[in-house]
Amino acid sequence: MNILPYKRRVYYYETDKMGIMHHSNYIRIFEESRVFFLQQVGMPFEMIEASGILMPVLSVECRYKRPLRFDEIFFVYPQIISFTGTRLSLKYRVTDEHGDLCAEGSSSHCFTDTDMKPLRIKNSHPKIYDVFAEEYNYL
Amino acid sequence: MNILPYKRRVYYYETDKMGIMHHSNYIRIFEESRVFFLQQVGMPFEMIEASGILMPVLSVECRYKRPLRFDEIFFVYPQIISFTGTRLSLKYRVTDEHGDLCAEGSSSHCFTDTDMKPLRIKNSHPKIYDVFAEEYNYL
Amino acid sequence: MNILPYKRRVYYYETDKMGIMHHSNYIRIFEESRVFFLQQVGMPFEMIEASGILMPVLSVECRYKRPLRFDEIFFVYPQIISFTGTRLSLKYRVTDEHGDLCAEGSSSHCFTDTDMKPLRIKNSHPKIYDVFAEEYNYL
Amino acid sequence: MNILPYKRRVYYYETDKMGIMHHSNYIRIFEESRVFFLQQVGMPFEMIEASGILMPVLSVECRYKRPLRFDEIFFVYPQIISFTGTRLSLKYRVTDEHGDLCAEGSSSHCFTDTDMKPLRIKNSHPKIYDVFAEEYNYL
Repeated sequence: MNILPYKRRVYYYETDKMGIMHHSNYIRIFEESRVFFLQQVGMPFEMIEASGILMPVLSVECRYKRPLRFDEIFFVYPQIISFTGTRLSLKYRVTDEHGDLCAEGSSSHCFTDTDMKPLRIKNSHPKIYDVFAEEYNYL
Repeated sequence: MNILPYKRRVYYYETDKMGIMHHSNYIRIFEESRVFFLQQVGMPFEMIEASGILMPVLSVECRYKRPLRFDEIFFVYPQIISFTGTRLSLKYRVTDEHGDLCAEGSSSHCFTDTDMKPLRIKNSHPKIYDVFAEEYNYL
Repeated sequence: MNILPYKRRVYYYETDKMGIMHHSNYIRIFEESRVFFLQQVGMPFEMIEASGILMPVLSVECRYKRPLRFDEIFFVYPQIISFTGTRLSLKYRVTDEHGDLCAEGSSSHCFTDTDMKPLRIKNSHPKIYDVFAEEYNYL
Repeated sequence: MNILPYKRRVYYYETDKMGIMHHSNYIRIFEESRVFFLQQVGMPFEMIEASGILMPVLSVECRYKRPLRFDEIFFVYPQIISFTGTRLSLKYRVTDEHGDLCAEGSSSHCFTDTDMKPLRIKNSHPKIYDVFAEEYNYL
């Protein structure tokens, strides 16, 4: 499926005294782009949570290349890099409006029920499994 | 009861490109001080929530006098300014380490059950009512 | 001038354990809408700061009517409610996608140079003065 | 040198709708602990910045083991894991009050002047170099 990048501007309150977007906010824009991505593949986050699945974050990482400044437009390109039915990993590329790389990162997630017990969604939620598997195989 | 002020330093990520603590963070430090205050009066927030009471915020306001900078120590002095059994209001004074006023504000709250339905805690939770009433009358 | 409302969705990290957008974030979305507003009236924030003017926040307040939930679309309608050349005040209405009121608030600002000394922008920056005066009189 | 861990509680606004501390905040508490660490080794962040050095973040990563909940006390143990005079890396362990591991991560940094040009601080700022080298060798 052809996924649109996530786009927005840097908010004033996201800058720090160095005058750049604080590095912690990249972890947040990864999440924003993940939500937009899931919406596009037809599996909005609310639908996932409504079906009793939580997707806690197991790990995140980010490498910073070029700082973003206040009100600068940026794009985030999320992509599934692995999916096993018990775990999901995505990578993210952040670019400025000229397409220059600003940051790269990734996140990995597991699937749990609302009591935070691990789920094998192939069995428990096959439709959600299929969406992730299809999107993963597409790439 | 003699209430201790809430004390901490300004975090780097709380500064903005003007080099000062972003104004939105004062609403957050009011909340931090409120939690510390409730703990001191013997009614920790978790205990309130465990008894099935939520305290949604009805309004907040803040007037800024002197900006706080990175790593600066500040104090927040919360105080109950009204309590009716259905509503609670607090004011907050923020000072620097010399006691100079940096900001002043207030917040008002109601009491609801976990479905966000209003509660008259005098009837539903008399022990919690008494704690607030006593603290209010003390002042 | 016909000002477009500011529109976006609630981010996951903006929710709190009550499952609603944390009240402090409304102060941040007021700022986001202010930046968008200034862009529309032809006086982007960067242009203001590039001309040596800072607009520190003197006060903010917000009254909460109906909580916003994760991924919910909302609109912010900012409007200048007073402008004197030394001070600027705006009010903000936040609605959900059905137009129902979620929150209302306001902010007031002064104008300073980069050393935080007050400016009378009618004299120091007449073009910026005219933009605010025109927008204020329009309403 | 014997470094004290950084200690605080989880704030209400740091929780998300899962009822746990949002994962992005761990990157922020790493920074908080880094500032406390630099203070303890006699090289407070303000002193570093006052000497014309910025320490931009090159990368961060975090692995989440056990979620922290509202008002829970946690500790962060930062430690220098590499120092070359042009780069500095730290790792961080986050534990709850029983010493159980909640998260682990790391950050790497370079040294630049205020125009973001790289610095070899062994030559440019030998006293700051010595502090980091000593702390690194100690461990």
